[in-house]
Amino acid sequence: MCKGKIVIALGGNALQAFGSPPTAECQLEVVRKTCDFIAQIVANDYEIALVHGNGPQVGRIVLALETAKEVTPPLPLDVCDAMSQGYIGYHLQQAMHEALIRIQKGHIPVVTIVTQMVVERDDPAFKTPTKPIGPFYSEEEAKTIAKEKGYVMKEDAGRGWRRVVASPIPNHIVEIDSIKRLWDSTIVVFAGGGGIPVIEHEDGSFEGVSAVIDKDYAAELLAEQVGVDTLLILTEVEKVAINYNKPDQKNLDILTVEEAERYIAEGHFAPGSMLPKVQAAVKFAKSGEDRKAIITSLFKAVDALEGKTGTLITRSKGQ
Amino acid sequence: MCKGKIVIALGGNALQAFGSPPTAECQLEVVRKTCDFIAQIVANDYEIALVHGNGPQVGRIVLALETAKEVTPPLPLDVCDAMSQGYIGYHLQQAMHEALIRIQKGHIPVVTIVTQMVVERDDPAFKTPTKPIGPFYSEEEAKTIAKEKGYVMKEDAGRGWRRVVASPIPNHIVEIDSIKRLWDSTIVVFAGGGGIPVIEHEDGSFEGVSAVIDKDYAAELLAEQVGVDTLLILTEVEKVAINYNKPDQKNLDILTVEEAERYIAEGHFAPGSMLPKVQAAVKFAKSGEDRKAIITSLFKAVDALEGKTGTLITRSKGQ
Repeated sequence: MCKGKIVIALGGNALQAFGSPPTAECQLEVVRKTCDFIAQIVANDYEIALVHGNGPQVGRIVLALETAKEVTPPLPLDVCDAMSQGYIGYHLQQAMHEALIRIQKGHIPVVTIVTQMVVERDDPAFKTPTKPIGPFYSEEEAKTIAKEKGYVMKEDAGRGWRRVVASPIPNHIVEIDSIKRLWDSTIVVFAGGGGIPVIEHEDGSFEGVSAVIDKDYAAELLAEQVGVDTLLILTEVEKVAINYNKPDQKNLDILTVEEAERYIAEGHFAPGSMLPKVQAAVKFAKSGEDRKAIITSLFKAVDALEGKTGTLITRSKGQ
Repeated sequence: MCKGKIVIALGGNALQAFGSPPTAECQLEVVRKTCDFIAQIVANDYEIALVHGNGPQVGRIVLALETAKEVTPPLPLDVCDAMSQGYIGYHLQQAMHEALIRIQKGHIPVVTIVTQMVVERDDPAFKTPTKPIGPFYSEEEAKTIAKEKGYVMKEDAGRGWRRVVASPIPNHIVEIDSIKRLWDSTIVVFAGGGGIPVIEHEDGSFEGVSAVIDKDYAAELLAEQVGVDTLLILTEVEKVAINYNKPDQKNLDILTVEEAERYIAEGHFAPGSMLPKVQAAVKFAKSGEDRKAIITSLFKAVDALEGKTGTLITRSKGQ
């Protein structure tokens, strides 16, 4: 019997091995192992939908296009995002199907929907872009690029200069109706890399913008709009911690919305890492009665769904 | 009232302007114009699904990756195909939505399915690869690449050496069930570039192969499997001709399966150009009672559907 449908957000580490060559073959190997863990969730009678990050992949697409710019014109970031959705979605379709065959569920379709996400043109994130993408440049190169293309370039932790783009909050999933139609029978892979960011014009048409939406927010938005009970955010650690990496680190089994908001205000969670995950989890837990989010590692996902580990984010402890 | 559902195969010229710079911005402009013509078909009360080619786009992706190979590893052709499906699908979704708004049908969803197509491992096409892809090399470079990567390299019409890949016949659309579920309410963009070619292993799992499936065959297969009456193949000319570009060129209004097969045998249609279109049209017309294919230009599509122009391929003239 189906125990419910969950939306799963897969982090970058689930798609690319740390330290191994960034080839498609290596990625496919990592995706295969990831899908074996995800298939265990399906074997435990949950229905699932998948959202994935695209940081390393879209970074390499941008890098290749920038390197080859004398030979063929670079493509804008929204197009690179769309390309990464095809790339990673294809690998997930193939590897997930293989993993489903191994648990005798090869009949479940796995399908990728190229997904656009509407962001607000006046999202404050556009005023202060923070998300670094693509290759590193010298200061001089960076200044030339900034002048020629109007990109915002910033120095990145002593490693060189990089382009930074905005990371706005998604408001609407353009392809939501199609995702809902496939929902019951299918593992839908959607909003890869957080979705292709678009703004909506007055006439209802869309236009791509240079931004990167956080995939945890994208997963949260779908979970909210489709109406599931559980949002599962998979990352590198088994539990969310406060005082992370300090002598008094404390791992959390359960986190109420109020606690989470206090810890966020106290700066316990790293921006670009645990912070957006906890923020997305809080937004989801607040969005409806009986809604809960779980943050844990890929390897502990099944146990976490059974309440044995991970960090549960709910409205209240009694829930 | 709906006059029926048609599968439309869009040629490369519908996605990229001849002679204009191969940027994403220029492509999007061309796609917008194309979608205005396609929207006229919808305005005339047909439901549609779209298959598109990817020749120029996947060629540039391969070119960029090969050029940047010292910086980031090139990706295999199946992955490049998947990337081009994301790229072109996204542009079609956006431009088609805009065009639908202009005809007061902005409520119709347009969605891209990342599509794998099963080919036979022992398809004779793998023995004699014919389809050139990617950049040109000198003879010496070509021989090094052939040795290092096992690619088949051929001299291409005096312009240099290129990699050639197989163009096998597709047998099955992996994502057919999902496409069918969306069919009634949605404009589905699928099998971009003919689909990502995969072989099926004994256990039912799939593996990508380096090949390029003809998009007309991909469109034909879907039209057959979903069960529509009309396959519309859009190309650069208004009608199929025999003795093409000769003094006695004769444009054809109607072509029976028998006539088409005779003309094919007589070599009237250019391989890689009109030949696969006529072959796909014949295969479709043969596949069921009352099934017909139309080959015409984008600009004449509406008139051709009304029987006013184009070349109609049917089982018999009286049909």
